[in-house]
Amino acid sequence: MNQEVPIAVVGVAGRMGRMLVDAVAEAEGARLCGVTERPGHPWVGRDLGEALGGAPIGVKVEDEPLEVFARARAVLDFTAPVATVAHAELAAQARLVHVVGTTGMAAADDARLDAAARHAVVVRAGNMSLGVNLLVELTRKVAAALGPDYDIEVVEMHHRHKVDAPSGTALMLGEAAAAGRGVELGQVADRGRDGQTGPRAKGAIGMAALRGGDVVGEHDVVFAGPGERIILRHVATDRMIFARGAVRAALWGQEQKPGLYAMRDVLGLG
Amino acid sequence: MNQEVPIAVVGVAGRMGRMLVDAVAEAEGARLCGVTERPGHPWVGRDLGEALGGAPIGVKVEDEPLEVFARARAVLDFTAPVATVAHAELAAQARLVHVVGTTGMAAADDARLDAAARHAVVVRAGNMSLGVNLLVELTRKVAAALGPDYDIEVVEMHHRHKVDAPSGTALMLGEAAAAGRGVELGQVADRGRDGQTGPRAKGAIGMAALRGGDVVGEHDVVFAGPGERIILRHVATDRMIFARGAVRAALWGQEQKPGLYAMRDVLGLG
Amino acid sequence: MNQEVPIAVVGVAGRMGRMLVDAVAEAEGARLCGVTERPGHPWVGRDLGEALGGAPIGVKVEDEPLEVFARARAVLDFTAPVATVAHAELAAQARLVHVVGTTGMAAADDARLDAAARHAVVVRAGNMSLGVNLLVELTRKVAAALGPDYDIEVVEMHHRHKVDAPSGTALMLGEAAAAGRGVELGQVADRGRDGQTGPRAKGAIGMAALRGGDVVGEHDVVFAGPGERIILRHVATDRMIFARGAVRAALWGQEQKPGLYAMRDVLGLG
Amino acid sequence: MNQEVPIAVVGVAGRMGRMLVDAVAEAEGARLCGVTERPGHPWVGRDLGEALGGAPIGVKVEDEPLEVFARARAVLDFTAPVATVAHAELAAQARLVHVVGTTGMAAADDARLDAAARHAVVVRAGNMSLGVNLLVELTRKVAAALGPDYDIEVVEMHHRHKVDAPSGTALMLGEAAAAGRGVELGQVADRGRDGQTGPRAKGAIGMAALRGGDVVGEHDVVFAGPGERIILRHVATDRMIFARGAVRAALWGQEQKPGLYAMRDVLGLG
Repeated sequence: MNQEVPIAVVGVAGRMGRMLVDAVAEAEGARLCGVTERPGHPWVGRDLGEALGGAPIGVKVEDEPLEVFARARAVLDFTAPVATVAHAELAAQARLVHVVGTTGMAAADDARLDAAARHAVVVRAGNMSLGVNLLVELTRKVAAALGPDYDIEVVEMHHRHKVDAPSGTALMLGEAAAAGRGVELGQVADRGRDGQTGPRAKGAIGMAALRGGDVVGEHDVVFAGPGERIILRHVATDRMIFARGAVRAALWGQEQKPGLYAMRDVLGLG
Repeated sequence: MNQEVPIAVVGVAGRMGRMLVDAVAEAEGARLCGVTERPGHPWVGRDLGEALGGAPIGVKVEDEPLEVFARARAVLDFTAPVATVAHAELAAQARLVHVVGTTGMAAADDARLDAAARHAVVVRAGNMSLGVNLLVELTRKVAAALGPDYDIEVVEMHHRHKVDAPSGTALMLGEAAAAGRGVELGQVADRGRDGQTGPRAKGAIGMAALRGGDVVGEHDVVFAGPGERIILRHVATDRMIFARGAVRAALWGQEQKPGLYAMRDVLGLG
Repeated sequence: MNQEVPIAVVGVAGRMGRMLVDAVAEAEGARLCGVTERPGHPWVGRDLGEALGGAPIGVKVEDEPLEVFARARAVLDFTAPVATVAHAELAAQARLVHVVGTTGMAAADDARLDAAARHAVVVRAGNMSLGVNLLVELTRKVAAALGPDYDIEVVEMHHRHKVDAPSGTALMLGEAAAAGRGVELGQVADRGRDGQTGPRAKGAIGMAALRGGDVVGEHDVVFAGPGERIILRHVATDRMIFARGAVRAALWGQEQKPGLYAMRDVLGLG
Repeated sequence: MNQEVPIAVVGVAGRMGRMLVDAVAEAEGARLCGVTERPGHPWVGRDLGEALGGAPIGVKVEDEPLEVFARARAVLDFTAPVATVAHAELAAQARLVHVVGTTGMAAADDARLDAAARHAVVVRAGNMSLGVNLLVELTRKVAAALGPDYDIEVVEMHHRHKVDAPSGTALMLGEAAAAGRGVELGQVADRGRDGQTGPRAKGAIGMAALRGGDVVGEHDVVFAGPGERIILRHVATDRMIFARGAVRAALWGQEQKPGLYAMRDVLGLG
């Protein structure tokens, strides 16, 4: 009897979709049971291996999630808000673990994820890497331990194609720093500093964004006090760290009660 | 009635001694009640302010610790092992808080500090800065949270006059990393890597030292895993951070039972 | 006969003024011949050493630059635009080398410095450190050598009291990068990136500013290309580097013809 | 008529060999005309595309370099010293441009490359990336511009599988620094600093090596002086930079006279 958890990947033709497929393939205890793309995509109906330019692997690209989900115990979803909300309902009906890395969700979308989480396990994170989630926890603790004499700055660098600033991960770090101090990031954030700014506001959390080349993602949280600085730094060099985290979440979720979880739950942090 | 804690500084003519004097002066709740130098030092008998090239401050440099300790409730000691051991006995008799930043102590010296700590509060640390001690705690936690897939390297930079490598603080960080993994640093340290080393040994903790210019002290702990790195970094730019930590320890110790304490106790970490 | 160049320091009571005094004292071939403060300043008429809280040094603080300049062969000036313009005329009349580190000069002020430079040597720089000026030259060369596939970002960090962003030195670096590419910084600068920015514009030079603690000044110029980055970095830890550069300029200027010079001339760069 | 330069890749099954194939494919003005592996390798006789797990590309893996070289105008060689020396003779006979990235060559091997370079163009480099070679030039210039007050340290980080320290690129940087000062690296290198070292020797060039994770390669050259530091830093995140540099060298070499060249010649540096 096969004990491996069957996992589906939606939106397989995108860069992240392909990485999720690789991450399932390399993970112990998991196997790929189905993949989807939107109706009309040229890959639909083809063998995934061949669509990727290699040998056939016996998994066909489908355009009907319901059928794929029926064979799965977890689904990895880094698509777009509209698709993710639809997937969430199907996944909840099928009692699958739904691992959501989709960004740009609106409040209404969040509400529908919450509803789905009453019936099934939903794991959601802006960044699924072990390292980043650990950094988020450290940031919260250090911000709480250091008094207001230590100024907090978050700076990140990403590739030239990124269209928003600061990054979602930088915002997670800023929110963790604010939480450690018992304040809201929105009330203390000092974003995109430029011009005649005056002296730094007490308690501000600065946020700066660099863009260039093909940098996968780098984040620094700086705590600058009198005569010393602590810097917590994360460097991502391979997007596979996000895909591996998603698979880890899918396997972890098999043993959990329905609910909405974060990566810190998966990783046993905090 | 003056509620400030009277604090003595021993070895006042050295660079660290002068900083301790400044740190007492700037601290709330503390006042300088006496300073010492070794018998025969040209400053003995002079007013400290004048000896420093300024105006008199009403504190004379003395060469007899016993008399100075009689007026104090704490003593700050960054001298040498022989002197520190002698101070420890006097401080224990006088029930003073003894803050010890002296380095290079042998096992026999440690035993005498332990003995003194049965009668009085002794706070001892290789590095008294808030930031460094926080970094030590973070290092232990991250090393414990991350599995053996994450290689640990400690690298530090100090000024050109430093005579040993790695720094005492780097060793503290290496020991914290080893403790997080449940091993001894001495058994896994890979120091001064050079030549045909072969592949990195699993579980090794690398240690490297840079020297140059007038760098006060910088330490990085790198956790390098598949596709990502976490880096915990401390930058010291002013030696006053060590002196301020010592004063903080002296004030904190006023309320404690006799015993040997570390800065993590003073700072409420861990 | 004393061969040391007599140097005057104007605005001696400020932080930079005191450093200039120290830099003259430690430099070979230079001696302090006079110092000024604005009329009404409490130090005027006192011995400078005593005003600084130490022993007398035989140099009185004066409030009449003309008299001081008559004894000098160079004047070090990190004051304010109004004062600097007045000093420039006096220095030109006396044929002194005028070393100007004043910032915030308007175009009209510049014109008056230019006029003074027809009669005497004027050395002017936003940042007088050897290292920063070298970095400026390197930035220009690397920007010229690397094609448009390499995205340029300038990021700096300064202490919490700094009131403008980016720093004058960051602007110097950005201008050098733009010059290396044959463009104007004003037309390609992308300052204070925040929000829905869209992909990075081709040829943009990004500029970001961090603020916190008591950081003296750090600047990075990042060239991010496909699969690699070059980073040129300057770290200042002691404002004395600016003061030492000023003294060096004062001595160098003794042998030059009248004219307006930059630190790159003094340092023999480029 | 096809104007693309036909290029051969030797040792195609290794990690670097595959990257060279990709780099030829993506380069304008170049086409892959043949690939080799050692006799007995399972890929010999198969189509390269299929051997790589994809669709056939019409290039067969061969084990006889002489036949492949007859169709080529350049050969890319990142193999081992024994193979490279044999390739050099064949390439010289065929008047091909021989691009050599092989490391670990002995003096006798060097002599045979020199001999080949009397008849054909040989381009040889320990590191073929544009960025690294630019950094080498900058290092030489900065070392020459800054006096002995600036201490030089070279520190690098590579993945856990690297078997020697410091890296070949770090040695290139150290040699460039030494050359800038007019000394030999072997006489001033301070490698693997550890233990009771005493104060830093005047004029020393320190070299330290970090190992961990899957870091492609990072190098810092630190110039640490009084109150400031300049740091020249290179970060490689994709080995394709080395492969692209090799193709660039192959194309550049088409127009050159026989001789032994370095990447600085190819890149027009220095």
